Amino acid sequence: MSHYTAGDFLNQIEIPKDLREKFELNQLPQVADELRQYIIDVISEIGNSHFGASLGVVELTVALHYTFNTPIDQLVWDVGHQAYGHKILTGRRGKFHTNRTKGGISGFPKRSESEYDTFGVGHSSTSISGALGMAIASKYKGEEKQHIAVIGDGSMTAGLAFEGLNHGGSTDTNLLVILNDNCMSIDPNVGALREYLTDITTSHTYNKVKDEVWSLLGKISKFGPNAQAIASKISSSLKGSLLNDSNYFESLNFRYFGPVDGHDTIGLVNILRDLKDIPGPKILHVLTTKGKGYKPAEDGNATQWHAPGVFNKETGEIVKVIPTSPQPPKYQEVFGHTIVELAEMNDKIMGVTPAMPSGCSLNIMMKAMPDRAFDVGIAEQHAVTVSAGMATQGLVPFCNIYSSFMQRAYDQVIHDVALQNLNVVFCLDRGGLVGADGATHHGAYDLAYMRCVPNMIVASPLNEAELRNLMYTAQLENKGPFSIRYPRGNGVMPKWKTPFKEIKIGTGQKLQNGSDLAFLTIGPVGNTTTEAIAALKEMGISAAHYDMRFVKPLDELLLHEVFSKFDKVITVEDGCVMGGMGSAILEFMADHSYTAKVVRLGIPDKYIHHGTPEELHAECFYDKAAMIKSAEKLMQGVILKASSLVG
Amino acid sequence: MSHYTAGDFLNQIEIPKDLREKFELNQLPQVADELRQYIIDVISEIGNSHFGASLGVVELTVALHYTFNTPIDQLVWDVGHQAYGHKILTGRRGKFHTNRTKGGISGFPKRSESEYDTFGVGHSSTSISGALGMAIASKYKGEEKQHIAVIGDGSMTAGLAFEGLNHGGSTDTNLLVILNDNCMSIDPNVGALREYLTDITTSHTYNKVKDEVWSLLGKISKFGPNAQAIASKISSSLKGSLLNDSNYFESLNFRYFGPVDGHDTIGLVNILRDLKDIPGPKILHVLTTKGKGYKPAEDGNATQWHAPGVFNKETGEIVKVIPTSPQPPKYQEVFGHTIVELAEMNDKIMGVTPAMPSGCSLNIMMKAMPDRAFDVGIAEQHAVTVSAGMATQGLVPFCNIYSSFMQRAYDQVIHDVALQNLNVVFCLDRGGLVGADGATHHGAYDLAYMRCVPNMIVASPLNEAELRNLMYTAQLENKGPFSIRYPRGNGVMPKWKTPFKEIKIGTGQKLQNGSDLAFLTIGPVGNTTTEAIAALKEMGISAAHYDMRFVKPLDELLLHEVFSKFDKVITVEDGCVMGGMGSAILEFMADHSYTAKVVRLGIPDKYIHHGTPEELHAECFYDKAAMIKSAEKLMQGVILKASSLVG
Repeated sequence: MSHYTAGDFLNQIEIPKDLREKFELNQLPQVADELRQYIIDVISEIGNSHFGASLGVVELTVALHYTFNTPIDQLVWDVGHQAYGHKILTGRRGKFHTNRTKGGISGFPKRSESEYDTFGVGHSSTSISGALGMAIASKYKGEEKQHIAVIGDGSMTAGLAFEGLNHGGSTDTNLLVILNDNCMSIDPNVGALREYLTDITTSHTYNKVKDEVWSLLGKISKFGPNAQAIASKISSSLKGSLLNDSNYFESLNFRYFGPVDGHDTIGLVNILRDLKDIPGPKILHVLTTKGKGYKPAEDGNATQWHAPGVFNKETGEIVKVIPTSPQPPKYQEVFGHTIVELAEMNDKIMGVTPAMPSGCSLNIMMKAMPDRAFDVGIAEQHAVTVSAGMATQGLVPFCNIYSSFMQRAYDQVIHDVALQNLNVVFCLDRGGLVGADGATHHGAYDLAYMRCVPNMIVASPLNEAELRNLMYTAQLENKGPFSIRYPRGNGVMPKWKTPFKEIKIGTGQKLQNGSDLAFLTIGPVGNTTTEAIAALKEMGISAAHYDMRFVKPLDELLLHEVFSKFDKVITVEDGCVMGGMGSAILEFMADHSYTAKVVRLGIPDKYIHHGTPEELHAECFYDKAAMIKSAEKLMQGVILKASSLVG
Repeated sequence: MSHYTAGDFLNQIEIPKDLREKFELNQLPQVADELRQYIIDVISEIGNSHFGASLGVVELTVALHYTFNTPIDQLVWDVGHQAYGHKILTGRRGKFHTNRTKGGISGFPKRSESEYDTFGVGHSSTSISGALGMAIASKYKGEEKQHIAVIGDGSMTAGLAFEGLNHGGSTDTNLLVILNDNCMSIDPNVGALREYLTDITTSHTYNKVKDEVWSLLGKISKFGPNAQAIASKISSSLKGSLLNDSNYFESLNFRYFGPVDGHDTIGLVNILRDLKDIPGPKILHVLTTKGKGYKPAEDGNATQWHAPGVFNKETGEIVKVIPTSPQPPKYQEVFGHTIVELAEMNDKIMGVTPAMPSGCSLNIMMKAMPDRAFDVGIAEQHAVTVSAGMATQGLVPFCNIYSSFMQRAYDQVIHDVALQNLNVVFCLDRGGLVGADGATHHGAYDLAYMRCVPNMIVASPLNEAELRNLMYTAQLENKGPFSIRYPRGNGVMPKWKTPFKEIKIGTGQKLQNGSDLAFLTIGPVGNTTTEAIAALKEMGISAAHYDMRFVKPLDELLLHEVFSKFDKVITVEDGCVMGGMGSAILEFMADHSYTAKVVRLGIPDKYIHHGTPEELHAECFYDKAAMIKSAEKLMQGVILKASSLVG
């Protein structure tokens, strides 16, 4: 049970019905305050959670559940890291302290967790399409329901959101899009739409103009009947343009309302009640502040307070664990510094990220070389195709996209880059299991989905030095499409800034001789294998270790050595076993008539939920213990089936 | 050599430089007429090509190459099926009659074909991002160039186009987007943006409103100084809204010009010359008519004239080959009629297509059940996520997307459908090699990229009856995500309307007993295998045949039978061998310690260009002859390596 105490009002709310039945409109601000305080109390202690986004929508959350008849009315949170208040109000207050831990609640809305979570989210910009699908279903079934998508201004830049608006605007469904405008993704937002929203909300606002024009037209009509007629004619002209078409959203046939103060709970309830009665697609523009109501977050660096970790809620001091010895860097830092080093040597190198400059560390290059590094907003497809365009001009773009987000740009990888054999370097960050973000964010599939793309080089470094060397190699004389995947988190080399060395494409390396069996690994998970092999040695099992380094092209010379010497082989990858590196090895064997017994370790064919990477590696049976056990069993002649290894 | 005769002017043009140097502005209309006639002359005879789209941009093509210094200035055609005039003006007139045939020129711009083809295209909506990448490169390198993307109004509905605009509008690059507005994709366009563009161009036009308001303001100011001041105030208010923000494109910070007549060559040259001098991102809205200048196409059904086949250019009669015996239907027709049959029985079924209603035959359901079948525009991502939204409400959407276009919705398949285990039925049309459309359109990768997605059922029918039965099975009691892939073109069953029968998930079928070796096939390519097996029998080789039907889950019972009986196995799939069905079989073998010799036939790990399906199957070594040869070699003990089979 939770030891956290809710305020008097919040304490009376288990589900939104309580909110709606027990409280008057004027009591809602206190509910919101207590909800905010509860989030601060819990998140400051448990850490490892998002923070600023949920604080920003506390009032909106209360207003939505107060106004709409959830879960009958359907509320879809875009991305969902801002839905903590929603979770607390919908039966999960008592579990909220388990947020993002193994067996605990998910950090994102999830259909399997609650009937109030109408649509599972995690990746951005799905809410409009999802809610529209629900609205179409309601209309078809003749059900009178409201369908509300809450989407941030950052998520609005993704193509999917536009596609949803374009379809939604041509329907007569009951769809309300709430644009939660806080000017931020994790990093400050970019792009023309962002500038446009700022124009709307700052001094020369759309609404002020609208009001002003109407008021002036009123004055003109005082000049007499002739002037009245003219004013009326202007007015009707304006109706056709200024009022209907003069807005990005209205041009897509959404009725636009706002902007309104997103921290005025009562005001929000009032306008939401009005909007309930207006049929058809509509958008409410709500202005909020990330971190609202918690001064250190409001005043501080919004990127830092996006997910601050544990902090002292009284002082706002973020708890930093200071290590006693030099620690290895994050792979992200290695990427960030190395691309600048390389760009200093090679003026063809450019950097591209879709809205993850701080997450992937391209912000280092954006600061050092602002004309050569670009944050293109949440727009993975465009990030890849704009990189292709640059590459046609002889530049070498490093396009850094998280593995799970690269799923959004798969066609662009195949059609715009690989088919044209362009030298775009894909740095696939967050390859493998990511931990607390869970099922939506694991980089599970990239080795499989990249491997089948012709021309694509598929590499993954064992450690920091290898990451540097792969990045170095990728920008040497036209290498074509080149993907380098590495995990979230820390490497293994405190002294990581090693000199650059070219790696021959398609070559692995033998890390350890052995006589009983061989491990073939790809990526940093190989470091765990090194530990497992040491343990096996003490148990009297002699295991060789080969770091494949490239899943494509495979090092055939090295593989001939392996399969000539060994009849027992274990492949290990921090990626899906179905179609991944292990399968590539099996294809090699089939083509060359090798018949060794091969056990494939990696992510099984199911969705893996949240937990620490260590917990999840154990769950998926490719942690150190699993490697040891697999080797033992293999030596005993027990048949191990990849799909049955997982507990 | 070509036997086609060009007109006097066109005959003098080998490359755009000739056009620019030899002709005066007032001669351009004749150049355009001759270019149009040449396209009509060739395409009417060779058939198998796109038609209406290229006729629609003849004047624009001439104007662009006349005004801009191609290939230094960079011209990107979106999709590219409208670029025939461009190809003829850029050194390929003599080869134009080889269009879309094996060894001939591609039906789309292709970088390897010409320096004038700045960006390889085929899938829609890449042009803005591609041209923007080029523009960023030019700016970085300090080169004074123009970058022009020509994009249709249909392509503008895809999220990628929006992402490109959103980034482009926040840059100060030299980017000109030409919106080629002909109200059509292959089918008439849909969506709110389409309605908006129609609003702009029809009676109550944006421009008329603008003009009218300005003129009225002029009149108001005649009422005296006070009125003048008011008019001036209105005017400046309007500047901030009506003129700058009152347009979809201007809200994204593109300067908007137009709409202009896209068939007035001289007018186009004049405005393009003006636009050359205006820096920054800008959009020119050009109105064109698909099929322009060829009366049967202009007056007739634009969808039919998109790619009419061979036709009599004098009469406009499309040549139809009338078969002497009943022919098997296209798989597309089977899909189109079957979904209506099923929807009549099951009121939960809905149909969704991203802009391919006639291509995939969902138009049959759209006509029969307009409230249950939707064309959502070129928006594959949205098509999948809106289907997910419907599925959350208990509906069973059949979302029909071409295999190669599904690459655009890969994340939505993983994140919005499969992770939530929603019962969306993906009908993957055009799975396998598609023929004349070539490298951009082959459905090569879907078995590999779908297979690694947890929860996903991956099926492909042997024939029409099986397609019907799989569709029937997929809509029975919540089956989760279910993909059914089938090829472009005709099936094998003239009497295809067989009664529905449930197929147990994950079961294949033995089609033929045999004793020497076994073929494992997936999909209609298995019918070719049947022929090969008959031929092998005459050669004294006895081959068994198993139709796997499901790549996932695999029929393990059947596979145990196969590998208990046979030590020689040939897998055949109309899909990539890397990671495809053959690899799934190897994984099964590894997990169960089978060591048969397996030869995998399918699409090799390279891009396959255009040709007839028969030519391409032979090139890829999985036509009937290849199957026979593989069996022979396997019997002789010759080692066959998948990657070395291809000539």
